Amino acid sequence: MSAFDDDTRVEAVAANHFAAAVSDRWTALGGPNGGYLLALCVQALRCELPLPDPLAVSAYYLRPATVGPAAVKTEVIRTGRRIATGEARLIQDDREIVRAVASFTDLASLTGRTVALTEAPKLPPPDEAIDVLAGVSFANLTLLDRYDYRMAARPGWMDGRPSGDPRMSFWIRFKDGRAPDPLALVAMVDAAYPAVLEIGEPTSSTVELTVHVRARPAPGWLACRVITRHVIGGYHEEDFEIWDTEGTLVAQSRQLALLTPR
Amino acid sequence: MSAFDDDTRVEAVAANHFAAAVSDRWTALGGPNGGYLLALCVQALRCELPLPDPLAVSAYYLRPATVGPAAVKTEVIRTGRRIATGEARLIQDDREIVRAVASFTDLASLTGRTVALTEAPKLPPPDEAIDVLAGVSFANLTLLDRYDYRMAARPGWMDGRPSGDPRMSFWIRFKDGRAPDPLALVAMVDAAYPAVLEIGEPTSSTVELTVHVRARPAPGWLACRVITRHVIGGYHEEDFEIWDTEGTLVAQSRQLALLTPR
Repeated sequence: MSAFDDDTRVEAVAANHFAAAVSDRWTALGGPNGGYLLALCVQALRCELPLPDPLAVSAYYLRPATVGPAAVKTEVIRTGRRIATGEARLIQDDREIVRAVASFTDLASLTGRTVALTEAPKLPPPDEAIDVLAGVSFANLTLLDRYDYRMAARPGWMDGRPSGDPRMSFWIRFKDGRAPDPLALVAMVDAAYPAVLEIGEPTSSTVELTVHVRARPAPGWLACRVITRHVIGGYHEEDFEIWDTEGTLVAQSRQLALLTPR
Repeated sequence: MSAFDDDTRVEAVAANHFAAAVSDRWTALGGPNGGYLLALCVQALRCELPLPDPLAVSAYYLRPATVGPAAVKTEVIRTGRRIATGEARLIQDDREIVRAVASFTDLASLTGRTVALTEAPKLPPPDEAIDVLAGVSFANLTLLDRYDYRMAARPGWMDGRPSGDPRMSFWIRFKDGRAPDPLALVAMVDAAYPAVLEIGEPTSSTVELTVHVRARPAPGWLACRVITRHVIGGYHEEDFEIWDTEGTLVAQSRQLALLTPR
């Protein structure tokens, strides 16, 4: 059992009600990572819906989560032949932490047109890229023990010299060798430092995150491209693409986040 | 009263229950326009939540709507000092048509940082741009009677020569002179033809649409930039930006849609 599978396990305890545990193994500086929390929601919906793959998932982050027990309450909204839609609420201590709506499909059954309009990020092969986090360890950043990252170059903000250009690309994979799948992609789109670190911001908190899973990923490393284009009144979006080693865009997300007031 | 205000009116008939009417004045070829339907949902939430402006709105389109009576059922999820979040369900004939979750804020109160990283689309002034729809009229496309559009050049697909590049930019405004506001932006991000017409597709249907309203727009024309970057297995995203005449990005959206099988 991989850490990801173990820590996203949910157990049906009543109709539309799953017991879960928010693990201490997926924390970012502010607490449990939002992508990991969303994977818990999607895992519960996978148990309820008759189609296997999350296609579109939208999460609204209402309160910080804490490590410990949680419930996921689900609702099946509509079950169609091609798309099934449901809702999940992640609850701790009777308070709602995340509200998520998701449409599922069978990504292996898509028969429509594919048009190559853009390309995967240009990165050196993973074994020639830099492990910029080698030796880095923080007690409240256990996410770094779950994922491997490789970059073409060390980002400026790490040396106190933010580039002013809030974008980056890098390789990612699970450290324990678990293969990526659509559930993992839902977590991975939120598994990097915010691009706004390159404009000198220390952190930001997610208001809303929507991820589109576009294909089942091939095994191995995944290439990520992240960019923030608009910072307005403290709010910024962050666009995230994940490409597999076969050159397929497998997931795309956007989140709206608020710079932490200083 | 403008057509938009008139046709997005909702009436409280019970707790968390609003009566609405889906007007025949906002139809696209497939029926009532998705952006208009979402504005109905947001209008009901505006009545329930203590903050005035939609900030992030996610809609899942479950079934086609029809012209005629509808209900909007709402739920207040969380009311914070800075952000309030609610859910709306648009219902016709006891069937749910749209599920929407939205966070509201007061966009006039934002005090955080603004960083100019990108620019508004390059367009000729509206009075020098082309009204490519002049004289175009379809009984089932009443949306064209509600909005004015101006483009730099006539798009290739209109003459049966799709460019192969699914992007466009254009000016938009309400034909009756109503000033834009955050509610209008929610509708406008879905008020154009799909960019995939430029790759020879006749149409597509929206699965999910998320819009971020980033600022209250200045009065007057709005400049839109639309692009589809990935068409995979028949699904494509469409990114939509709206800029006001003062050069502020006022709304940004992404939708996931499915090309209509042929």
